[in-house]
Amino acid sequence: MLPRLVPRQPLRLFRWQAACALGASVQRRTWASRIPRPLGPWGAVGNSPPVCRRSSSTPAGGPEVALTQERYPVKRLPFSAPSEADLAAFERIIPGRVVTDTEVLAASNVDWLRTVRGCSRVLLRPRTSEEVAHILRYCHERNLAVNPQGGNTGMVGGSVPVFDEIILSTALMNQVISFHSVSGTLVCQAGCILEELSQYVEARGFIMPLDLGAKGSCHIGGNVATNAGGLRFLRYGSLHGTVLGLEVVLADGTVLNCLSALRKDNTGYDLKQLFIGSEGTLGVITAVSIQCPPKPRAVNVAFLESPFYVLIETSGSRAEHDAEKLNDFLEQALRSGLVTDGTVATDQMKLKALWALRERISEALSWDGYVYKYDLSLPTDTLYDLVTDLRTRLGSQAKRVVGYGHLGDGNLHLNVTSEAFSRSLLDALEPYVYEWTARQRGSVSAEHGLGFKKKDALHYSKPPAALRLMQQLKALLDPKGILNPYKTLPAQA
Amino acid sequence: MLPRLVPRQPLRLFRWQAACALGASVQRRTWASRIPRPLGPWGAVGNSPPVCRRSSSTPAGGPEVALTQERYPVKRLPFSAPSEADLAAFERIIPGRVVTDTEVLAASNVDWLRTVRGCSRVLLRPRTSEEVAHILRYCHERNLAVNPQGGNTGMVGGSVPVFDEIILSTALMNQVISFHSVSGTLVCQAGCILEELSQYVEARGFIMPLDLGAKGSCHIGGNVATNAGGLRFLRYGSLHGTVLGLEVVLADGTVLNCLSALRKDNTGYDLKQLFIGSEGTLGVITAVSIQCPPKPRAVNVAFLESPFYVLIETSGSRAEHDAEKLNDFLEQALRSGLVTDGTVATDQMKLKALWALRERISEALSWDGYVYKYDLSLPTDTLYDLVTDLRTRLGSQAKRVVGYGHLGDGNLHLNVTSEAFSRSLLDALEPYVYEWTARQRGSVSAEHGLGFKKKDALHYSKPPAALRLMQQLKALLDPKGILNPYKTLPAQA
Repeated sequence: MLPRLVPRQPLRLFRWQAACALGASVQRRTWASRIPRPLGPWGAVGNSPPVCRRSSSTPAGGPEVALTQERYPVKRLPFSAPSEADLAAFERIIPGRVVTDTEVLAASNVDWLRTVRGCSRVLLRPRTSEEVAHILRYCHERNLAVNPQGGNTGMVGGSVPVFDEIILSTALMNQVISFHSVSGTLVCQAGCILEELSQYVEARGFIMPLDLGAKGSCHIGGNVATNAGGLRFLRYGSLHGTVLGLEVVLADGTVLNCLSALRKDNTGYDLKQLFIGSEGTLGVITAVSIQCPPKPRAVNVAFLESPFYVLIETSGSRAEHDAEKLNDFLEQALRSGLVTDGTVATDQMKLKALWALRERISEALSWDGYVYKYDLSLPTDTLYDLVTDLRTRLGSQAKRVVGYGHLGDGNLHLNVTSEAFSRSLLDALEPYVYEWTARQRGSVSAEHGLGFKKKDALHYSKPPAALRLMQQLKALLDPKGILNPYKTLPAQA
Repeated sequence: MLPRLVPRQPLRLFRWQAACALGASVQRRTWASRIPRPLGPWGAVGNSPPVCRRSSSTPAGGPEVALTQERYPVKRLPFSAPSEADLAAFERIIPGRVVTDTEVLAASNVDWLRTVRGCSRVLLRPRTSEEVAHILRYCHERNLAVNPQGGNTGMVGGSVPVFDEIILSTALMNQVISFHSVSGTLVCQAGCILEELSQYVEARGFIMPLDLGAKGSCHIGGNVATNAGGLRFLRYGSLHGTVLGLEVVLADGTVLNCLSALRKDNTGYDLKQLFIGSEGTLGVITAVSIQCPPKPRAVNVAFLESPFYVLIETSGSRAEHDAEKLNDFLEQALRSGLVTDGTVATDQMKLKALWALRERISEALSWDGYVYKYDLSLPTDTLYDLVTDLRTRLGSQAKRVVGYGHLGDGNLHLNVTSEAFSRSLLDALEPYVYEWTARQRGSVSAEHGLGFKKKDALHYSKPPAALRLMQQLKALLDPKGILNPYKTLPAQA
């Protein structure tokens, strides 16, 4: 069962067990309209103008996004600037896949939330881990900074450059390497899109152990690099448990092949764990081995009300058993007054429609203007207090204060919206939200990671000794700091 | 469902669905008779003779175990030897809990399989992580080697000293710190015995996510340090997924508090993962936060035959649903001829009796004399081939060649027995078994770890780049190499 906490908002409700009438108009969210998904070689090396100007071309769909370096107090580190000679060298490594087209770069420089923007002049699209190794070996030697990029669906500005880092895209690394039809072990390249993997394994009687709203765009490598949580976390657990192996290219171009497809392997330190959730700052994930659970034969989704909207999904192997258990639970919940109204769906279209209500909240909020996003782990009994507290604190400063998330995981997605970015609103939110969370011994990033925007909040959830060890690990694995700089860890004094 | 592969051996069988008649005489295995479990301060500092002599006192129950330094080609590293002044210093840190009693030390110097033996002269029994920190700070400064020890139930000689390392026992760190009755999150000290934790959480409607034959003696800290697999692995996954947080004392005495009780926490690198399975070589685990699943309301155990014994456990929330599904499955298995005979148990006594058949195999084998143990991950379809292959290869050299394990995890426990340790038999087994496993891209240690006895086999399952990174991590976290030396990683050239 996957209980989900959804904020109560004006919304048409349905009678108990009534047909759900939403299906037809609701589509799964994808970012396809915002982020061009590369479909082939985009362009060759050229003398394209740098996109680092204020007046750079604006992606369709909104006003220009401020450059990160102008909005945030961040200083470029002394990396080399990519030269024409560098582009020529990349062209020799991956002929025809060195992208300098300004439109592609404009889209790849800005996050989908349109809150941060870098000014990279080049995007590389390798197909193999050997090519990635070759590229990193070159960048390491030349002291060129690199921004690994998957589907660019991150929430914390981790997937786009801060300055002119070279964008290393996994988009063409999209091959399934193997699938074991008995064990359900999938081995694939890092650039496979989650939804396509889902379809691939579902056709073979399995499901991916993770699912998230961004499934139509996000890459499995990015999912692993950010330790994505999502909608199946409560049922199948964290990627630290379901990922069986990784192939990673280290900062100096060394290929670390820990792509085991074994359920159990206690030979030495479990190195792959280091890279799960390290946001591309310790190495570039090039392939993933992941345990897929059997596809449930029966799925029920219940959408309940009072005083919150709650979405519950059950999965099992026999429909009549699951229906019986769910009905008993719902009857009890109704009788106790805990639930006042709701609907249950079993067919695919209704299931998707109900899930879309949850999955599209983030997209819906982005229409308000600027969204201040917080992704907190909190004790379940105080999960919503911060929302009501902030509504009082912010008053008319905020357009909307919304709390939703994953009740079973203790994960609150706190969203505050305003017409446009406002420094004074940000100051009213931070460090207030972090201090509030730290007092509850919560986490200032439950599942979104730290990326660029949350890295300075790390100390609210981790003690100094842990920060020190993280910095040491970064120095060990990436001594020149070329991998996804300005991300995850706070700048060192 | 937890399918287990058990070798077919002469054994009384039961009629289908017949009552299981084994219950009365079968007890859960514990090591209590072999390993004295400390119950209070054992002794004070004294001038006890060193136990490093060939003629040291022999623990009850068998012939003297050869000293590791005599049986294996291993050289003592240049650590300081613990002096009387050191013992006095320890006595100031943990008054009355510095053990030099020869009988206690004799038991703590030898592994339960009686295959390796160290010659430590002192065992320390701290109660708090602060005391552990104080001890390690002292040892680090004095260059004294330390052997962290939990229940001393390991299979690979990781839990006893190789030479005169100071034994740091977690036996008195046995307090539950907190338990959350809704989420099922247990936080406890590292020295809590697994079976006692099981009883504690079961009384509160939960179960531990792991279970193993050694439950009566093993410590949760040792379980985590060795990434123990065990009997619930298939159902609840690896400790990398179920452990939520750890408190670890580093080699220099730094306390690393990552004892989060949160389901989700993506703030920086997931440091705790480094210590799960690192066998005490990177830090000493002093406390554990672990996610306990709800106690299943219905449990069925089926014990089936043809051509292997298979033990299957189901767990669910409604007995009649589970019985229906299991019966359907068994009928189908019988009809197809895959299963020829068997029994199903639902009551506690019979369940335990059936599990005991599986859990006591390891103990039973030890009565043969010397046991050569291999713990391999292999593709399921070739899982048993190595057993038949070895029977031919070894002929009368071996008393018995036995294969059992965890079919659902692809984990084969290969056991070869002989009257006494024989170098020629060992040479017939190694590297043959490892090479066989490497050809199948398997793991030379599925769940037992590498400890002392398997460390040189690491390269059969991990590439040179991985070994190099492991050595670098060891050097970063324990630059003097004082933590559990001679274990996990091969000696550096």
